[in-house]
Amino acid sequence: MDTVLTGITTTGTPHIGNYVGAIRPTVLASFDTSVTSFYFLADYHSLVKSRDPGQMACSTLEIAASWLAAGLSSECIFYRQSDVPEIMELTWILTCMTAKGLMNRAHAYKGAVAENEATDKKDPDKGITMGLFCYPILMAADILMFKANKVPVGKDQIQHVEMARDIAGRFNHHYGETFVLPEAVIDENAAVLPGLDGRKMSKSYGNIIPLFAEEKVLRKLIMRIKTNSQEPGEPKDPDTSALFSIYRAFSSDEEAESIRKLYTGGIAWGEMKQMLFEYLNEHLKEPREEYNKLIAAPDYVEQVLQRGAQKAREVSHPFMAKIRAAIGLQPLG
Amino acid sequence: MDTVLTGITTTGTPHIGNYVGAIRPTVLASFDTSVTSFYFLADYHSLVKSRDPGQMACSTLEIAASWLAAGLSSECIFYRQSDVPEIMELTWILTCMTAKGLMNRAHAYKGAVAENEATDKKDPDKGITMGLFCYPILMAADILMFKANKVPVGKDQIQHVEMARDIAGRFNHHYGETFVLPEAVIDENAAVLPGLDGRKMSKSYGNIIPLFAEEKVLRKLIMRIKTNSQEPGEPKDPDTSALFSIYRAFSSDEEAESIRKLYTGGIAWGEMKQMLFEYLNEHLKEPREEYNKLIAAPDYVEQVLQRGAQKAREVSHPFMAKIRAAIGLQPLG
Repeated sequence: MDTVLTGITTTGTPHIGNYVGAIRPTVLASFDTSVTSFYFLADYHSLVKSRDPGQMACSTLEIAASWLAAGLSSECIFYRQSDVPEIMELTWILTCMTAKGLMNRAHAYKGAVAENEATDKKDPDKGITMGLFCYPILMAADILMFKANKVPVGKDQIQHVEMARDIAGRFNHHYGETFVLPEAVIDENAAVLPGLDGRKMSKSYGNIIPLFAEEKVLRKLIMRIKTNSQEPGEPKDPDTSALFSIYRAFSSDEEAESIRKLYTGGIAWGEMKQMLFEYLNEHLKEPREEYNKLIAAPDYVEQVLQRGAQKAREVSHPFMAKIRAAIGLQPLG
Repeated sequence: MDTVLTGITTTGTPHIGNYVGAIRPTVLASFDTSVTSFYFLADYHSLVKSRDPGQMACSTLEIAASWLAAGLSSECIFYRQSDVPEIMELTWILTCMTAKGLMNRAHAYKGAVAENEATDKKDPDKGITMGLFCYPILMAADILMFKANKVPVGKDQIQHVEMARDIAGRFNHHYGETFVLPEAVIDENAAVLPGLDGRKMSKSYGNIIPLFAEEKVLRKLIMRIKTNSQEPGEPKDPDTSALFSIYRAFSSDEEAESIRKLYTGGIAWGEMKQMLFEYLNEHLKEPREEYNKLIAAPDYVEQVLQRGAQKAREVSHPFMAKIRAAIGLQPLG
């Protein structure tokens, strides 16, 4: 049986681009009973980038609530990384098995060094924390702790899964078979949504539509989506229209077909925006209500995460005992 | 009230040089009721150097038994590092607060790089693990976890205590007062014992007398201690005699005085060796018996360590909750 592990960063507010590209397919996959699924809030990863305690706490609640509201199966193991102390222990153990040269070659670190070298040749490590330098090891611990063999990731994360594989291989070679060698799984067809300005929807472009924006905000944002200057009545091309792309990401083939006909028939942009708003609002209403309920009930979300942590630790705790025995840290006697 | 923290590496068998230079003064200090004392077996540090599981397990028992047999006060908190998972969590948190540049400047790492550069200029990081590179952060976590303000160390470890201080300062500056800034305490008068060949007693010179060597072995080793070729009857100089130095490290001033007289009176080397053997044997008999009892009762030693871990976690567990709250990882709600 495959074991799939997915980490969820706990920074930022999810937008509909994240939903279509990552949350929705992952939520769908969480109902696949032929695999064991682990989903975790990667708060100790977030610490590498975020040093704002208020934002850390707030993001964790928002992201947990988002995934629950989006319908994550209650069958999968959904936990917060920092609730599983064995992951931190394993991080140190793997740290001792990792060649420094391997970390020197990590893309994220090399990118930061290249940036420094372009501006200030004196200190290539300027502003770089050990968190950035070491986080492939933390990621290896996340994966190896639960014997995940399939790790769905974006292309920028393939190297990290390969590093986890490399570290696991070294450990197994030295101490005997202990870890499962993981493989990265890339979804080549992951949907990419245009943002308000027509470019890819991305927080860094400031062109997002938050997944659970209130009705009024949602309407206002959709009204701001860029169109061309074609007049009502003129036939329009759905395939170059951000409005259509967003609609299409949520609609059935039949629905998309009827909208295509409206484009050919010269629907006015204002009308199409109103249709998209009503359509999206209809789709997001229920999860948005659920999301708002969850945000108002952080104690409940905490309970859900604690239950998840308990399930995760039912795996990590006994496995850590085996790992400790393998390296010679078992109890005396 | 001062809080003193002492780490004990769990590699190798302690010899009488370790005893006189480190174990005995530390055991004495453990009875000082005006300070809170933490003593820990640094097994996660040992993992940086030792990848032999059998030796790891064996060393932990031997070192724990040695310190208990040497009379460590049961009032102090004596625990095994790997039994306190909060230390590993704190290690990651501090990793995120540590500049990579700081680790680049660590002596141990720089020494390893210099060695590589002398032999193979192609890869300065050849054979260097992330364990070696990161261990000043683990040491910072060891110290900061228990708010130790005094850390007795050898001169080679001063830099690490300064790094712990630096990391704690950064954390406090960013997240608010959380950690106590530690200070290194150097014992300038630490006794140094000569070994069998007259050089400093050291495992690497192969000239040691194991602290709890069996009577026969102890005798045999003492008979091998280097002397000069002076004949019985000739007056001898105690101040250049390894036999006298070792005797002196255990004796009272009065006892030393009477031995000095024997030297002046021309005692034969063989006779002096026999006297030293009898004297040391008398001193070490009781702790040796205790040591052998403990080695034969690993379950009991484990219990002692578990009790220590419990006491340590009474400090680390609530403090970790505060640290987590400071960085924004508190429970939701």
